[in-house]
Amino acid sequence: MKRQLTHENTLKVKPLGIDTYREHIIFMRSDCNICLSEGFAALTRLVVRYGSKSIVATLNVVHSDLLQEHEAGLSDMALSRLEVTAGDFISVSHLKQIESLSDVRSKMYHHKISEEAYRRIVDDITKGLYSDIEIAAFIAGCAGDNLDDEEITWLTSAMVNSGATLSWKTQMVFDKHCIGGLPGNRTTPIVVAIVAAAGLTIPKTSSRAITSPAGTADTMETITNVNLELEKLKEVVSLEGGCLAWGGSVNLSPADDILIAVEKALDVDSAGQMIASVLSKKVAAGSTHVVIEIPYGESAKVRSREQAMKLERCFKAVGEAMHLNIKVLITDGSQPVGRGIGPALEAMDVLSVLENRKDAPTDLKEKSIMIAAAVLELSGTFEQGKGSKFARRILEGGKAYKKFKAICMAQGRFEVPAFARYNTDIKSEVGGRVTSIDNRKLARVAKLAGAPHDHSAGIYFNAPIGTKVKPGQVLYTIYAEAKGELQYTLDYVKSAGPIIKIT
Amino acid sequence: MKRQLTHENTLKVKPLGIDTYREHIIFMRSDCNICLSEGFAALTRLVVRYGSKSIVATLNVVHSDLLQEHEAGLSDMALSRLEVTAGDFISVSHLKQIESLSDVRSKMYHHKISEEAYRRIVDDITKGLYSDIEIAAFIAGCAGDNLDDEEITWLTSAMVNSGATLSWKTQMVFDKHCIGGLPGNRTTPIVVAIVAAAGLTIPKTSSRAITSPAGTADTMETITNVNLELEKLKEVVSLEGGCLAWGGSVNLSPADDILIAVEKALDVDSAGQMIASVLSKKVAAGSTHVVIEIPYGESAKVRSREQAMKLERCFKAVGEAMHLNIKVLITDGSQPVGRGIGPALEAMDVLSVLENRKDAPTDLKEKSIMIAAAVLELSGTFEQGKGSKFARRILEGGKAYKKFKAICMAQGRFEVPAFARYNTDIKSEVGGRVTSIDNRKLARVAKLAGAPHDHSAGIYFNAPIGTKVKPGQVLYTIYAEAKGELQYTLDYVKSAGPIIKIT
Repeated sequence: MKRQLTHENTLKVKPLGIDTYREHIIFMRSDCNICLSEGFAALTRLVVRYGSKSIVATLNVVHSDLLQEHEAGLSDMALSRLEVTAGDFISVSHLKQIESLSDVRSKMYHHKISEEAYRRIVDDITKGLYSDIEIAAFIAGCAGDNLDDEEITWLTSAMVNSGATLSWKTQMVFDKHCIGGLPGNRTTPIVVAIVAAAGLTIPKTSSRAITSPAGTADTMETITNVNLELEKLKEVVSLEGGCLAWGGSVNLSPADDILIAVEKALDVDSAGQMIASVLSKKVAAGSTHVVIEIPYGESAKVRSREQAMKLERCFKAVGEAMHLNIKVLITDGSQPVGRGIGPALEAMDVLSVLENRKDAPTDLKEKSIMIAAAVLELSGTFEQGKGSKFARRILEGGKAYKKFKAICMAQGRFEVPAFARYNTDIKSEVGGRVTSIDNRKLARVAKLAGAPHDHSAGIYFNAPIGTKVKPGQVLYTIYAEAKGELQYTLDYVKSAGPIIKIT
Repeated sequence: MKRQLTHENTLKVKPLGIDTYREHIIFMRSDCNICLSEGFAALTRLVVRYGSKSIVATLNVVHSDLLQEHEAGLSDMALSRLEVTAGDFISVSHLKQIESLSDVRSKMYHHKISEEAYRRIVDDITKGLYSDIEIAAFIAGCAGDNLDDEEITWLTSAMVNSGATLSWKTQMVFDKHCIGGLPGNRTTPIVVAIVAAAGLTIPKTSSRAITSPAGTADTMETITNVNLELEKLKEVVSLEGGCLAWGGSVNLSPADDILIAVEKALDVDSAGQMIASVLSKKVAAGSTHVVIEIPYGESAKVRSREQAMKLERCFKAVGEAMHLNIKVLITDGSQPVGRGIGPALEAMDVLSVLENRKDAPTDLKEKSIMIAAAVLELSGTFEQGKGSKFARRILEGGKAYKKFKAICMAQGRFEVPAFARYNTDIKSEVGGRVTSIDNRKLARVAKLAGAPHDHSAGIYFNAPIGTKVKPGQVLYTIYAEAKGELQYTLDYVKSAGPIIKIT
């Protein structure tokens, strides 16, 4: 009881309506006797409890009359995580030393750390015990070639164990994944539609954009609901054989989503973390057979064929350790796929392919067929080389589109996205032929325009490699939902140097 | 002008009295037309301008009536950096892409980066363009053996160039530094007093604690003023030949202080960063001859003699490249030096040695004499082996204490610190002899008790290795300024396992 008195300290909650995003903040008066008796200072991290729930929050000290005595403010996220409202009494105490941080330090020093260490770290991250800078340090410590296959496997299973796992009635459960880095490479919805139409089970959960202008979940969200509860997701799959949901909403590998938020802020996505991120989601989703696409190109995420093959080897090694049947496709990443870059614009490409429209981008169509074929062949029911013909028939016969709409309806709605309010054309100053494209700069243009945060923002791309262009011809159109973004994006385009090389 | 309209946006400042420590926060209404037109979201980083001043701040979105339309709140630090008050109009705009972050990313991937890259990174950090997670990523990227000598030299000179540099009339300017990791190793004030009394110039600037319970600046602050303006510092040195100031207050290598704040939060202090941190301060302070102490021991910052020699080699290589004359002393780091651990308690040890009191800790005295001797010999005016005798005479003759008081008075005050309000004895449960001490755990106990934040908090240590102890004998006393800290520290001591091994 004495311990209770000196250790736990209760304060009355006053919501301040401050949104600090993912990081929990607690606001306390500088003269509050808890601050004094416990000796808290700015940036101190505290444990905040309400009933059985508890979070770790960073202290912001208030010197004004924003708070009355015995009151504490909480950021929006902290309020909802604790499920408290005005007047509730929370208790505040010191954060005990987080043991797993010593594992993070030894990883920063490039030592190999144990399976238990990865479990400790991932558990603490999932519990919300890490501050963003501590997460950043862990991410940086795992960057480069700093994780060997065994460590990646340990990190993967730790991430799987950090959240829910799905199980399915069918023996074979399929999935596909593209490691990204290629703007507009939105094959997933088409592949899922073809594979599900072929009668296979493909419960696809996708992530939102990490460093790209759009993730599959962002794109699908412009067409249907992707935040599906676990039960809803299972219902959709048992109904249609496939789904196109956001992974985060079903709590698969939740640690991964926390890591991704910081990776995004740092604009990094390193091999070990990426493989663990991808495979942990697959294992948690109950997949048994996975096709992984690795596009490579000068300005893609993977720069060379050698690098791509190194990744392939690592994916297979870790996949085997996780009992996954993996096929890797190394593809051309020299330029964007399709025309749209950004959630809504990519969704339009997807729909045009599924509808078999004449103006549908053939590169996106052919690539989707190739991947779908790989999945069909991986199932063993189609021999090598036969998958492609079958996949094409399903797509061109309209079965895929029918299945896609059915999946969307099962997920709650089917709608065709619209263009953003503001747009401007980027025209070629010279004449000639497009010889190369800087995907990174192009992706940055789309991001500055607002993608993925603004769904209809991004780029509509008109100049694939080989295109003959006249001076004044439109190379691409930038779409934005706000004038400020558009103006700012144009400033970047002016200062960025050549994005599309014409000679 | 149009650009002005779409790009710059003015808001009226409303101070909210919120202290977010070092990180700048701007609070803006979610419905404010700037948020809408520019499409800002939570965690967006913005450039905030007032007149010629500008800072980068992280956006917190406000959903309540905390702010009226066209109002923006700023955290305390942001207010003072911009020198704005209620009613002033600030302008807010997008943060342009920070180019140097791509250098940080390639360092995270363990690539060697260029001299220019280090300059870019350090300049941007000094300008306050980096968020804490970006700084954390850079620190982690530099951890371990990730920097070669050349890179450390580049980082060092970039840090030197990031701030002010001092120059002195005398040709030889001396300095000493201990890389720390050893609780209570507070030789600096004694060494400076001896060296200055010997007539040499030693303008000592020290850092505050990084991961230890006290830095020399923290300790000296309990006796005198350490936040000296540049002019004041020069005045003290020309008057007394030496000073004992805090490095941060004279803006030497300011980037280092920003890095240190995050290193402290991460509780890391890696070789490359450490050497750059130490030597950049020395070069900026105008030093020509530097004695560096590297204590090693099982639980010291440096674990083995091999590691210490590796550091010595690196210190000398980088020092040579920076035109510094360096002597390294590798010392015993198996246990604390002196009795006090924590700012005020270490200050008491220092004073007892200077006053030649009978109860003064001999280990601290002898170590200080050894280091002072090395400095005297480095000056060339004393041949090898003769320095020690001379240093002892200065100390025991009272000249050092006289000089120390003179320096303190020149810095503004001389006072003897007091003990903290609360204390409790940690007694031995068994009898026997002390065979080993876990310095890290001991340091943590002092930190949990409140050191260095609470000046008089820490540990008074009674059980050096070899001490015979009876059951119930006091091993050390914990001092704290707040009951909560004391209780919490005791909980840790109970759960930490053996800190002092008795057999």
